[in-house]
Amino acid sequence: MALLETRKYLQGSALGGVNPDLASERQTPSFSVEKLTALLDGGEENTRIRRAVVEAIESDPVFSRENQYFQSQNEKYEAAVRKAVHLQKKMHEMGWTENGPEFKYIYRALSGEIAFLLHTIFMRSISVLGSDKQIAKWIPLAMQYQLIGSYAQTELGHGTYLQGLETTAVFDITTQEFILNTPQISAMKWWPGDMGRSATHTVVFAQLYVQGKCHGVHPFIVQIRSLQDHSLCPGITAGDIGPKMSFEHIDNGYLMLQNVRVPRENMLSKFCEVQPDGTYVRRGSQQMNYLTMTAVRVALISHEAVTPLMKACTIAIRYSVVRRQSKLKPGEEEAKILDFQTQQEKLLPHLAAAYAFHFISNYLQDLFNRGYEEIQRENFSMLPELHAFSSGFKAIVTQYCASAVEVCLWACGGHGYSLLSGLPSLCTRILASCIYEGENTILFLQTARFLIKCFMAASAGHPVPPSVTYLAAVKPGKCPAKNKFDFLSPDIYTQAYRHAAVRLISSTAAKLQVLIQSGVKKHDAWNECTVQLVQAVKAHCLYITVKNFAETVERLETKGGIQKIMKHLCDLFALHGIFSNSGVFLYDGHISGAQMDMVTASYLDLLAVIRKDAVPLVDAFDFTDKTLNSALGSYDGQVYQRLYEWARKSPTNTQTNPAYEKYLKPLLHKKLSKL
Amino acid sequence: MALLETRKYLQGSALGGVNPDLASERQTPSFSVEKLTALLDGGEENTRIRRAVVEAIESDPVFSRENQYFQSQNEKYEAAVRKAVHLQKKMHEMGWTENGPEFKYIYRALSGEIAFLLHTIFMRSISVLGSDKQIAKWIPLAMQYQLIGSYAQTELGHGTYLQGLETTAVFDITTQEFILNTPQISAMKWWPGDMGRSATHTVVFAQLYVQGKCHGVHPFIVQIRSLQDHSLCPGITAGDIGPKMSFEHIDNGYLMLQNVRVPRENMLSKFCEVQPDGTYVRRGSQQMNYLTMTAVRVALISHEAVTPLMKACTIAIRYSVVRRQSKLKPGEEEAKILDFQTQQEKLLPHLAAAYAFHFISNYLQDLFNRGYEEIQRENFSMLPELHAFSSGFKAIVTQYCASAVEVCLWACGGHGYSLLSGLPSLCTRILASCIYEGENTILFLQTARFLIKCFMAASAGHPVPPSVTYLAAVKPGKCPAKNKFDFLSPDIYTQAYRHAAVRLISSTAAKLQVLIQSGVKKHDAWNECTVQLVQAVKAHCLYITVKNFAETVERLETKGGIQKIMKHLCDLFALHGIFSNSGVFLYDGHISGAQMDMVTASYLDLLAVIRKDAVPLVDAFDFTDKTLNSALGSYDGQVYQRLYEWARKSPTNTQTNPAYEKYLKPLLHKKLSKL
Repeated sequence: MALLETRKYLQGSALGGVNPDLASERQTPSFSVEKLTALLDGGEENTRIRRAVVEAIESDPVFSRENQYFQSQNEKYEAAVRKAVHLQKKMHEMGWTENGPEFKYIYRALSGEIAFLLHTIFMRSISVLGSDKQIAKWIPLAMQYQLIGSYAQTELGHGTYLQGLETTAVFDITTQEFILNTPQISAMKWWPGDMGRSATHTVVFAQLYVQGKCHGVHPFIVQIRSLQDHSLCPGITAGDIGPKMSFEHIDNGYLMLQNVRVPRENMLSKFCEVQPDGTYVRRGSQQMNYLTMTAVRVALISHEAVTPLMKACTIAIRYSVVRRQSKLKPGEEEAKILDFQTQQEKLLPHLAAAYAFHFISNYLQDLFNRGYEEIQRENFSMLPELHAFSSGFKAIVTQYCASAVEVCLWACGGHGYSLLSGLPSLCTRILASCIYEGENTILFLQTARFLIKCFMAASAGHPVPPSVTYLAAVKPGKCPAKNKFDFLSPDIYTQAYRHAAVRLISSTAAKLQVLIQSGVKKHDAWNECTVQLVQAVKAHCLYITVKNFAETVERLETKGGIQKIMKHLCDLFALHGIFSNSGVFLYDGHISGAQMDMVTASYLDLLAVIRKDAVPLVDAFDFTDKTLNSALGSYDGQVYQRLYEWARKSPTNTQTNPAYEKYLKPLLHKKLSKL
Repeated sequence: MALLETRKYLQGSALGGVNPDLASERQTPSFSVEKLTALLDGGEENTRIRRAVVEAIESDPVFSRENQYFQSQNEKYEAAVRKAVHLQKKMHEMGWTENGPEFKYIYRALSGEIAFLLHTIFMRSISVLGSDKQIAKWIPLAMQYQLIGSYAQTELGHGTYLQGLETTAVFDITTQEFILNTPQISAMKWWPGDMGRSATHTVVFAQLYVQGKCHGVHPFIVQIRSLQDHSLCPGITAGDIGPKMSFEHIDNGYLMLQNVRVPRENMLSKFCEVQPDGTYVRRGSQQMNYLTMTAVRVALISHEAVTPLMKACTIAIRYSVVRRQSKLKPGEEEAKILDFQTQQEKLLPHLAAAYAFHFISNYLQDLFNRGYEEIQRENFSMLPELHAFSSGFKAIVTQYCASAVEVCLWACGGHGYSLLSGLPSLCTRILASCIYEGENTILFLQTARFLIKCFMAASAGHPVPPSVTYLAAVKPGKCPAKNKFDFLSPDIYTQAYRHAAVRLISSTAAKLQVLIQSGVKKHDAWNECTVQLVQAVKAHCLYITVKNFAETVERLETKGGIQKIMKHLCDLFALHGIFSNSGVFLYDGHISGAQMDMVTASYLDLLAVIRKDAVPLVDAFDFTDKTLNSALGSYDGQVYQRLYEWARKSPTNTQTNPAYEKYLKPLLHKKLSKL
């Protein structure tokens, strides 16, 4: 696709040509922007498909996000339901199917502003946990929206720790029903999406009791609202949990159950069943379950963390070459703020991180696909590694991207703080990704268990998964770099990261052992090591990220300048990490103080190098103006005009002033209209 | 005041007694909570006055914040105007005056949710920059709200760099008027509070032209709306800039001027005047001007950064002893999440920081008061120091507190993300403090100029202000600590911070000199050092903060266990800083790797020590339930019940479902009400 077409693809409404300061940034990129876009998409064909999906969605007014920043919670919810219902029609119209190549681009094209994601989880849980008969009954109805489902797992007082759930389901052998109850307020279901105002059904997780014996948490399909008039069913108390920091388009709900009866057939029974006589039967392996959780975490890294960071970088970097402030040199005009070293330091390492995490997300997807194939062959040996990697990377990438998006907001000064910049909504939404699908600290510690186990095994000479064999080969050596250019060698910095990871994991494992040997109970000892365990896991994840980035660069084609620019970004990501966490590397002298000065020098040099290509590097992310929905980040850089045009549409300007008549008029000086 | 009365003061609506998990935390504090509250207030008398103000405000329904989380931008604005107008009446009623001891507590009691702060700045700018005649004309009208003022400085394309402003004011000698114009869109005034919908007048900063000659930026009083019907005056285009990340109660505005004429007398003329014949006269010293800016920055550290952090700590810590999740030990009940080391590490260092920054805010206030006295005596020698300190500390404290409040939000998991927790509004509001009143990076670099200058002077043996004499006495020595207990010595850790600050300032000064000597132009050399200069300023500010905390502890009375617990917090703050920025201390071996292990050990020990007093330490902040406005943070810890009761009041539950009739009803399965 030629450059002209790209521009046409990216631009929304043109406001009189591209701002000349922005245009000049695009004149001599050191690489082919189109080639880089294709690389990010995994091939030109994918780029073509993605663009077609985006164009189809964006040209349809039902999917418009034009008023997004002015809407109330109610209006956002209504729009999200409208879009969800319309999407079904659209998919049919366009011939898109759930297994087609277009499907994965739809969510991105909608920027996630759509209802019924939990309805999808409702369906998935039935497909994974339900019997064939249950699947045959419920899935077709759900597919047609003849019912709306939700997924009621977490409770007011219970999140990650599933065994702690309090909701009960008691089997009544006489009526062949389960009786569901919310024993106290902390047991109220809280947070499930689509449940507050939409759902007619939900999968409730409850402690199963049969003849007085508790069998642990199980899933039950429960109807909560009438299909005729949407009124709440008997025994059901349900509603919306109210305003949140973001996700206002979703009706996260609460649910209280009082003696709600569901037939025996409503317990999802692929793996467990209560037979008519009350016999509890468990069958098959539930390990496939973990795979679902892993799949969700791997997918969200890309959708909910890396993509928002790419958007934030696009907005902040384009704005930073349009915005001029203060003079760098006396007598000259005010400088583009991206020419200040401090602004480069705010944005360019995060741009490099967006690429680093894009590649690690591909790596995890590959790992997952391989694992999935093995599991299809009933080989579950990769599951612990998959679970550990998806947990640790979900945590580190969401946390990093959340901070980075916030820095992008700050970097745009006051205008970044306006909702019209698009940055506040990215910022508040990405924060949630640090909490949902596993709170990050808990996830780090799950990965820590895996790493400590692997480290112990490796130390004892036992085999460990290939991704962690590095733990076995501890090399205490010093970094051999002699000047700042040596730090542009991937071998040197990758080795530094590896050294740090091994040191942190091994020293924490040692502390754990010492504590236990000194008589501290195992659980207490673990708790006393958790701060350091989290550090160790982060070091591990960063090592893998840097190594994967370096190996990816190695494999890239040199044509179109792609390999060269990616090498610069890889260097920048790695050296920024050493510069900003220098203690980890200085601690045992692997890198000396003098070498740290070389790291700093190379790192600062790289900022100036990447600066030149900063705009082409964000253009390559290929976000349309409508996707960005930002007055600051549009392709044409008409920042001020767009801010003004959008502000005028605000209800604060289109509606009358409620305070004037009531409060101001009685006070204002009455004698003269003009003082 | 006895404990019972305190509880009555703090609690809003009781929901059935204090949660027993929370109550148990208050049973045996190691110190007197009342004494600590008095210390924070600067004496018992202040506590009494503060509580009286808070009670008077909170018992008045006009000031209620009950619906805060459910309001639209329009509703928030209306409420803020209502409160501002009512406050005047209230102050009269209560006998509070602007010079009385109550005044400084009013803003805190209102949690800043009030309009007309820029009206106050309007008045202040006239008082400081206006002639006696101007003051006599405008101030009485403004005091009575017979006009509403604003302060129009920043423009769409121009923020901190005032010389860059584009608005023009041309003197017309024939009519004795100034003609104001907005030459292009980037010159539109943008962001001034109270201007979007309320203000009738504003102080416009514009480039003054007399007979073709530009005299730089000057302030002009301009009427923008009619006092009769509030319509826009001829030549004026104005409105609201639309939704923001927070501050929705404020009508930040835009303003465009087209040939707007104001009489010659409307240029504020204490320091500069255009005489009838066009002669431009400059008189007196404008240095008092800087003092206003300094005063605002010093005040906002406490109001807009430290207080929100104290609130966030109160909410998160109370919640963390009510919330139970997972088992620390097998067989026991689920543990309070504050008993997990990782949760302690998230919250307790920030609790210590709230105290550290409270004391540094007092330090700055004292420095300011001394400076103010000197300036009254026409001695301006303290101004550079005052300006540098207020800038650097404004930047470091707002940035630290913004991150810390966000960590408090994360630490509450999903419920922290609900607006009802009170944390999202604290979080989004405090982010703004990193941008307004001087963007933080720019402020850091202003402090850097001062420090580099002082360092050069000190190195040459010239005198420097007392607060920076430490730069002269460079001691390259190693840290003498031999075991982890040595790191509980304030001398040892203060010296480590001092060492780091001196090293970073001196090495950056050296880099700067080397660059200049090698032929790099001064401005370019400065730009190439800015990343490191920011690091150096941070090190300086942290050194002063730690030193001041340690010295404050030294002076405290030992009665009531106050000194002991404050010493623990000081140690924690200092060691957390070393632990989490270890590279700064390891770099040149001032602290060795082995010593860093001692720091880590002492740091982790302290977490467990502070844990015991965590709840009393936040109770001492003495925030009422109404002030916190948090379902998670109330004094009684009835977290789940309050979340449920508040959620039910949400418009998403009290209004009909807009999406059901339109989108869902036509789809849902019609044959049966129940499946």
